[in-house]
Amino acid sequence: MKAKVHVYLKPCVLDVQGKAIEGALHGLGWGDVANVRVGKTIEFDVPGSDKAKAEADAKVMAEKLLANTVIESFRVEIA
Amino acid sequence: MKAKVHVYLKPCVLDVQGKAIEGALHGLGWGDVANVRVGKTIEFDVPGSDKAKAEADAKVMAEKLLANTVIESFRVEIA
Repeated sequence: MKAKVHVYLKPCVLDVQGKAIEGALHGLGWGDVANVRVGKTIEFDVPGSDKAKAEADAKVMAEKLLANTVIESFRVEIA
Repeated sequence: MKAKVHVYLKPCVLDVQGKAIEGALHGLGWGDVANVRVGKTIEFDVPGSDKAKAEADAKVMAEKLLANTVIESFRVEIA
């Protein structure tokens, strides 16, 4: 099974990378683009076919390693 | 409208960040996790309600700025 963990900065945290991209897009002519946020996605294979277990495992991985839960939030997707 | 551009390293390119995360997950006890790949997601608001135009615009943005198409591939999602 494939697990995807999407990690984003929490809305209250300034996303400097997003701001930089927004400025560049404005400079390239897309002046109406707004609220650019940059996140990361960690994708991996988990063995077995128990979707609930895979999801629970991925959540623990995200809390322990993949996301800094002080400033980041995450979402787990199993396919 | 909200546009999401998912950017990944092409499968033939070594993903060192993914390898590092894979090693860390193995060290934390998830030895069966494999093929870890790390990508980034750029999310932004585009004005208007023309989905086709927003998708076309986001593709041009990805080609021009958001992805390095030599080593990265991207996927656009409009919601």
